[in-house]
Amino acid sequence: MTTASTTAADATRLRGVVPPILTPLTAEGELDVPSLERLIARQLEAGVDGLFALGSSGEVAFWDDAMREKILETVVGTVAGQVPVLAGVIDTETHRVIAHVREAEKHAIDGVVATAPFYAITGPEEVGTHFRAIGEAASVPVWAYDIPVCVHLKLAAEQLLELAADGAITGVKDSSGDDVSFRRLAAKNRAAGSPLTLLTGHEVVVDGAYLSGADGSVPGLGNVDPAGYVRMDRAARAGDWETVRTEQDRLAALMEIVFQPVGKVGPAAGVGAFKTALRELGVFSTNTMSLPMSPIEGDAVGRIRTILSEAGLLDAAR
Amino acid sequence: MTTASTTAADATRLRGVVPPILTPLTAEGELDVPSLERLIARQLEAGVDGLFALGSSGEVAFWDDAMREKILETVVGTVAGQVPVLAGVIDTETHRVIAHVREAEKHAIDGVVATAPFYAITGPEEVGTHFRAIGEAASVPVWAYDIPVCVHLKLAAEQLLELAADGAITGVKDSSGDDVSFRRLAAKNRAAGSPLTLLTGHEVVVDGAYLSGADGSVPGLGNVDPAGYVRMDRAARAGDWETVRTEQDRLAALMEIVFQPVGKVGPAAGVGAFKTALRELGVFSTNTMSLPMSPIEGDAVGRIRTILSEAGLLDAAR
Amino acid sequence: MTTASTTAADATRLRGVVPPILTPLTAEGELDVPSLERLIARQLEAGVDGLFALGSSGEVAFWDDAMREKILETVVGTVAGQVPVLAGVIDTETHRVIAHVREAEKHAIDGVVATAPFYAITGPEEVGTHFRAIGEAASVPVWAYDIPVCVHLKLAAEQLLELAADGAITGVKDSSGDDVSFRRLAAKNRAAGSPLTLLTGHEVVVDGAYLSGADGSVPGLGNVDPAGYVRMDRAARAGDWETVRTEQDRLAALMEIVFQPVGKVGPAAGVGAFKTALRELGVFSTNTMSLPMSPIEGDAVGRIRTILSEAGLLDAAR
Amino acid sequence: MTTASTTAADATRLRGVVPPILTPLTAEGELDVPSLERLIARQLEAGVDGLFALGSSGEVAFWDDAMREKILETVVGTVAGQVPVLAGVIDTETHRVIAHVREAEKHAIDGVVATAPFYAITGPEEVGTHFRAIGEAASVPVWAYDIPVCVHLKLAAEQLLELAADGAITGVKDSSGDDVSFRRLAAKNRAAGSPLTLLTGHEVVVDGAYLSGADGSVPGLGNVDPAGYVRMDRAARAGDWETVRTEQDRLAALMEIVFQPVGKVGPAAGVGAFKTALRELGVFSTNTMSLPMSPIEGDAVGRIRTILSEAGLLDAAR
Repeated sequence: MTTASTTAADATRLRGVVPPILTPLTAEGELDVPSLERLIARQLEAGVDGLFALGSSGEVAFWDDAMREKILETVVGTVAGQVPVLAGVIDTETHRVIAHVREAEKHAIDGVVATAPFYAITGPEEVGTHFRAIGEAASVPVWAYDIPVCVHLKLAAEQLLELAADGAITGVKDSSGDDVSFRRLAAKNRAAGSPLTLLTGHEVVVDGAYLSGADGSVPGLGNVDPAGYVRMDRAARAGDWETVRTEQDRLAALMEIVFQPVGKVGPAAGVGAFKTALRELGVFSTNTMSLPMSPIEGDAVGRIRTILSEAGLLDAAR
Repeated sequence: MTTASTTAADATRLRGVVPPILTPLTAEGELDVPSLERLIARQLEAGVDGLFALGSSGEVAFWDDAMREKILETVVGTVAGQVPVLAGVIDTETHRVIAHVREAEKHAIDGVVATAPFYAITGPEEVGTHFRAIGEAASVPVWAYDIPVCVHLKLAAEQLLELAADGAITGVKDSSGDDVSFRRLAAKNRAAGSPLTLLTGHEVVVDGAYLSGADGSVPGLGNVDPAGYVRMDRAARAGDWETVRTEQDRLAALMEIVFQPVGKVGPAAGVGAFKTALRELGVFSTNTMSLPMSPIEGDAVGRIRTILSEAGLLDAAR
Repeated sequence: MTTASTTAADATRLRGVVPPILTPLTAEGELDVPSLERLIARQLEAGVDGLFALGSSGEVAFWDDAMREKILETVVGTVAGQVPVLAGVIDTETHRVIAHVREAEKHAIDGVVATAPFYAITGPEEVGTHFRAIGEAASVPVWAYDIPVCVHLKLAAEQLLELAADGAITGVKDSSGDDVSFRRLAAKNRAAGSPLTLLTGHEVVVDGAYLSGADGSVPGLGNVDPAGYVRMDRAARAGDWETVRTEQDRLAALMEIVFQPVGKVGPAAGVGAFKTALRELGVFSTNTMSLPMSPIEGDAVGRIRTILSEAGLLDAAR
Repeated sequence: MTTASTTAADATRLRGVVPPILTPLTAEGELDVPSLERLIARQLEAGVDGLFALGSSGEVAFWDDAMREKILETVVGTVAGQVPVLAGVIDTETHRVIAHVREAEKHAIDGVVATAPFYAITGPEEVGTHFRAIGEAASVPVWAYDIPVCVHLKLAAEQLLELAADGAITGVKDSSGDDVSFRRLAAKNRAAGSPLTLLTGHEVVVDGAYLSGADGSVPGLGNVDPAGYVRMDRAARAGDWETVRTEQDRLAALMEIVFQPVGKVGPAAGVGAFKTALRELGVFSTNTMSLPMSPIEGDAVGRIRTILSEAGLLDAAR
C-alpha cells in the first residue's frame, strides 16, 4: 500500500462516526439515486466523520459488479469530498478482492475495506498473505473487516498488529461481537504506538468500545439516527461518560427495530428494519431489499414506527 | 423459591465484586484448606462484596459430590457470614441440579447458581421448566448462569425476564461473551423495574458492562487481584469513569497471564494461570489442577511472574 | 483396565445389535419397572446381541445417582446374563465418571461407556488422561462414546487407537455423525489388528457403516424395532447386501417418527418419539419423559401411529 | 429453467462418476493449459461419466471472472462433447450467481451448479427464492450444491424436493458430510418419483452413499484416480458390493494424502495434496496453488509419493 497523499480527506480523519450506508432501491430493485442522495445529505448534516459504502449493511454481497460501480459512483459524487469515503471490496478470495480494489480506486475514495478470505477454508498463513497482497495492490489505505458471522473466521489481534507493522493495513472495522478480544486488540495497539485505527460495528455497545479504546464506530443504525452517534462520539471525546451512556441507551432502544420482523434473519431483518425506518422517516421511497430478500411488511412496520416515535425521530420527520 | 429472610447477607447485597473462588489443591490433588483460607482472607481484606463457590473457575465440573461438599463447607465456614456466599449447583439436568441444591442448602449460603441443562439438547420449553423447577425447590435465591461456551446454549433476555417475573430467578451471571445481548438484557431489566441483579463474568470488559447496566462482576481474575476489581467498582458507583477505565486497563494487562501457557485450552490455561499466579504470590502452596488437567510448568511460569510484576502485584507479595 | 474374565458375556460378544435401552416412566415420573421388563423381553426375543443401559437414549443425563442405580439394577436383573450389558457412566469429568464406574461395577455388567470430558473445555492431553484414568480404574472393558452433539468435541481416530494400544479402551460407540471420520477410524483399526470393536449409533445408515467396517450398531430406534436391526446385521454378516439395504430403507422410513413432534428438539423429540411408539405398541404404559421434558401429544401421536403401521409394526402389536 | 434439448450429453447422463476437475497452474500462477488437457484426457480414458468444472476443488472461489472464463473455455473445448460438463456458478448471492450463469451458458455446458447464498445470513425463504430465480434464469439444468463447510447452511431435504417439483433444480451435489440427512433426502426423492439426481462429494464413503440411493459421485480424489471410482460405480450398478467395498477401501487409503501436509487447512491441504499427487504422477507440471495459498513442500511430498505407490498408482505412471 502506498499511503495516499494527505488531504483533508485522508485516513487519519477516519475517527468518529462512519456509518455503513445502505443501498436504497426502487420498487423494481434498481438503485434509487434520489433516496441515496437524501440519505447522504442527512448523514452530512448530522456531522458524520466519514461514510462506508459497499459494506454488509449496503448489501454488498448481493450486487454484481455493475451495481457496485454505480453505488460507489453515486456515493463519491454526492459526498464530493466533504468527508472521507471508504469502499468495501468484499469478495471470496484475494484475486477477486484485488479486482474490486482496482475498480474502486477509479473513484476518489479514501480507503478500502476487505475481509479475510471466505467460502474456502483458510488459516493464518493464507489470511496474512491475503492482506499483504491487498495492501501491496492498493494505492489507498486498507482496512481489515473482522466479521466472523459472515466470514466464519476471527482475525487475531496479534496478526492484525503484524499486518499493521508491515504497512499492509491501516485500521480495523470490528464486527466480531467479541468485546473481550477487542479490548486485547486495543491494548496491544496502544502498546505498539497505535498503528491501527479501531472502529466498532456494534451499534448498542459503542460506549464500552470507547472505554476499551475504540477510535469510533461504523454503526448500521447510524443510517437511521446519525445525529445520535455523533453526539455520543463528541461526548466520549470530552470525557462526558454520563452523556455517552444516556445516548447509547437511547440508541440501544432504537435498535429494537431489528427485532420486530417475524420469520426473518440476517440482513432481511436488520437492514430490512433500517430501510423500513428510513422509508417511514421519509428518507427512502421504498424498503425494497435485494433479491433474494423480501421487504418487511405487516404488523412489524407499525412496531417499527412506534419505536421510532419513542426515540424522538418520527415526529421530527413528519 | 421462597425469598430468604432479609439479613445482612441477603441477595440484595450481591452487587459489586463477587469473585468465583478457586479450589486450591495439595500436590496429591486433595483440597488444600490452608491455601483456601488464605485466598478467602485476602478476598475479604480487599473488600469484595460476596464470594461464589463451586463455579467454573472453582473447577466445579471436576468434583464428585464429596469434594463439592468439602469445598462448600470450608468456604462458608471461613467466610463466616462476613459477605454473602453463592454456591454453584452446576449439573447436566434438573433432577441432578436439585439434588445439589438440597446439599448446598445444608450450609449457610445466600443463593445458588444454576446453568441451563447441558449434554442433552434442550429448547426454550425445557429451559423454562428447568429454572422454574429449581426455583420452586430452592429456599434461597436462584441465579441463572449464562455460559454458552460450556452449556452450548444462550439464555434469551426475554426468557430471563419471564423467569424473574415468575419469581424463579433473582439474578444472572453473564459469561456469554455477548455484550450486545447483555445490553439488551440490562435495558429490558430496567424497563421491568430491575427484578434481576446482573453480574458480568468477563474480567477485561467490566467497565463497558457497568455502562450497560451491570450491577457488578464475577471475575475469575479477581482471585488474583480482588483489590483492583473493588477499586473499579467503587469508581463506577461514584461515576468516576476515568478511574474505571484506568483500573480496567491495568486488570486487562494482568489478564494476559491466561495466554502464557502453550498447548493448553479451557480451565487448564485460564484457571491454571490463576492458580500459578497465586502460588507465585505466596497464597497457594501449589498450582495443581484437578484430574485430568496438568499444571502449568516451564517458561510460562516466568512469563506469568513478569506480568504480575508489571501489574504491581509481585513485589507487594514477596 | 483389567480385562474381565472371559465368560459367555465378555466384551468380544459385543458385536451386532446393542440397543441403548430407554427408561420407561410412570405418569408420576418414577421408573416403570414392568414396562422396562417388557422392553427387555422384546429385545431378547428379537435376538439382540447386547444391551446398553444408561446411554443418551436412556436419558442418562437426567437422572440422579439413585435413579441410575435403580435402572441398572433392573436391567441387569432382568437380562440375567442372557446377553452382555454395557452401562453408561456419563458425567462431566474424570473423578465423577470414575465414581459412576465404582457404582456400576457393583452390578454384573460387561463394560462401561464413557464420553470425553464435557462442560469444561478440554484438549487432547486431557482427553487422553481422562480415558487412561478411567481404564485404570475400571475392572471391566471401557468403551469410548463419541457424541459431539452432546460433548462438543470429536474423538480423533489416532487418539482412539493410541488408547486401544495402551489397553485403556476396548471399543467405540460412534454417534459422531461423521461417516468420513468413521471410515478412517475403521481403516486404521483394521491396520492395527482390530484392537477396537466399532459400533455405530446412527440408525439410518448402519448399512454404510457395515461397509466401512462397523462391527455392529447401537440404534436408539432398535428400542422400537429390534428385529429389523437383527435381520440387517445377520444379512450383513452373510454378505447379502440387497437385504441389508432393503431392511435399512424400511428402518429409515420408520425413523421418520422422530420428525413428527412440532416444537421439540433433542431427546424431547427423538426419545419422546421412541417412547410414544412403544406406548402405541403396548410395550410402555406411558410416554412420560424426565423433567424438564414434556411428552409428545396431539397430532404427532397419530402421525407416529401411521408410520408404525406402514412399517408393519402396529398391526402385529395390536 | 427450460430443460435443454435432449442430446447425447443431457443431464440424464449425469450419473456415475463426475469428478470436480482441478485447475492446474504454471509456476507463475497462470492457467496451465497443457496440464489441464492431460488431466481431462486421463479422466476420459478412465471412463468418467461427466466433469464438473469450477467447483470447490477447482478453486472456484479464488478466480476472477476472466480466469473462470478461461478455465471453462478450456474444459469445454477439450472435452468436446464426449461427456457432459457441469459448470460451477458459485458466488455470494443471487444476482452474482445469475451473472455467472449468463457467462457459463456461452459455452456448451450441460448444467450449472449453485450453492445457497453465503456471506450474508439467509433463511429458508431466501434460499428458496434464490434457487427459483436461478432456475428461471438458466437455460440448462441447475444443480444445488450442498456444502455447509463453505456456505454455513444445510439444505433441507424437504426444500430440495419442493425446488425439484417446481422445476428449479434437477439434482443435488451433496458435500454436507451428513450421511443421515442424505439417506432421508434419497428416501424422499424416491418416494417423489426420483425427480432429483443425487451425487455425493465424499470420496471415502461413496459405497455407503450408493446403498443410501446415490446416483453417483463427484469425488475430488477422482482427479487422482478416476479409474478406481469408475470401477466402483460399475460394481455398484452390478450389485457386486464386495468389489464396491474393496475399491472404496483402496480409495480411502489413497485419500490419506490429504492428511500429510502439516500446518495447512482447507483446500491448501486437500486440493494441494491432489495437485501434488498429479505432479508426482506426471500429469501436472507444478503443484502451484492460487493466491493466497502456498504449495505443499518438504517431507509431505515424500509421504504422498509413498501413499501413491501403495495404491498402485505411482509405478504405473513413472
